[in-house]
Amino acid sequence: MSIVTVERKILKKNDEIAAENRQIFKKNKLFTINLLSSPGSGKTSLLEKTIEQLNNSIKIGVVEGDVQTDNDAQRIAKYNVPVVQIVTNGGCHLEAKLVQNALENFDLSTLELLVIENVGNLVCPANYDLGEDKKIVMLSTTEGDDKPSKYPPMFRVSDVMVINKTDLLEYVDFDMNRVREHAHTINPNLEIIELSCKTGEGLDVWIDWIRDNL
Amino acid sequence: MSIVTVERKILKKNDEIAAENRQIFKKNKLFTINLLSSPGSGKTSLLEKTIEQLNNSIKIGVVEGDVQTDNDAQRIAKYNVPVVQIVTNGGCHLEAKLVQNALENFDLSTLELLVIENVGNLVCPANYDLGEDKKIVMLSTTEGDDKPSKYPPMFRVSDVMVINKTDLLEYVDFDMNRVREHAHTINPNLEIIELSCKTGEGLDVWIDWIRDNL
Repeated sequence: MSIVTVERKILKKNDEIAAENRQIFKKNKLFTINLLSSPGSGKTSLLEKTIEQLNNSIKIGVVEGDVQTDNDAQRIAKYNVPVVQIVTNGGCHLEAKLVQNALENFDLSTLELLVIENVGNLVCPANYDLGEDKKIVMLSTTEGDDKPSKYPPMFRVSDVMVINKTDLLEYVDFDMNRVREHAHTINPNLEIIELSCKTGEGLDVWIDWIRDNL
Repeated sequence: MSIVTVERKILKKNDEIAAENRQIFKKNKLFTINLLSSPGSGKTSLLEKTIEQLNNSIKIGVVEGDVQTDNDAQRIAKYNVPVVQIVTNGGCHLEAKLVQNALENFDLSTLELLVIENVGNLVCPANYDLGEDKKIVMLSTTEGDDKPSKYPPMFRVSDVMVINKTDLLEYVDFDMNRVREHAHTINPNLEIIELSCKTGEGLDVWIDWIRDNL
């Protein structure tokens, strides 16, 4: 049995479980987001801002994926939303089975939005469907405008690219036109939302996007 | 044959080839660095600055690892140093065998320093020894001071942590004492160098570190 065969089997099995997850989400009329990026792009910050804006009107649940620690789950728990931490113990991505196990800890019928924050990694999580409705890739202005070209699989599979840390644009070399062009070359259908979790600029567009998708 | 067994076999095979690489480097009196970080932390920028400072006095070779594109190799080639690009085509890390194959393109006996810039990924490359003398993990101030705790394997296996983008410290929430404390909890022997590739501040410490290790 070759390595490639094993990898194919893992991905096939993952896709089957992701399809089961998708049925579970559909049955519970749950809109589900898989939030993806490098470490430190601002996934947890975006999640915090999203909860602050929507927690009064929408029932939100969160699955936190991390290599180690439950720091992010603790940040989210402060908002009194149900949150389940998955620690991968060195694993570089979430898999559908891990998410399925986590779902047992929610009363899904009471939720409307489930956000799955993946492990910080711009490479591996691109291959693993979790059953989500939409994949959101975050890129921050401090990471450079060449990232869609250099890490194309993630931008190819994503539905939305959220460009975070626009407040730092004047201090870094980041060409917004260039990143849009590179991203659309890889994925012409990619929606792009620019925002700053720090100043709140552009967050309304993101919140509207969620409301429109519920 | 289980997945875990396959993974163990891959890592064992990788370690064997890394040991061969180490012998090759030793035979050629070559100091070799494995440069590791998330996408966009500034690996290629540090490499450019290092070449600018040392190219007149030290013979440098570069191996560039990327998921896609040879953008980084093109950036480095401008400095007239020998550079070999490895494109992993979606692969999330360099392996010792890929590096060994790349070595065939150098006249190693003429080199003193070889820098291997790994794929931008703070998780997977931690497991793959390439035969290098030192592992350098870069973290930029825009990624957050919690990263050593959240991605401990990479910081555990590294010899030096280079904290880049100190020029942005005043615009981001990044506590230098906190990151040092977290990093040293995971790896008490980790050397820490703070610098800014943009302003050049602190670069002399990095350059001295290389000279001391040659």
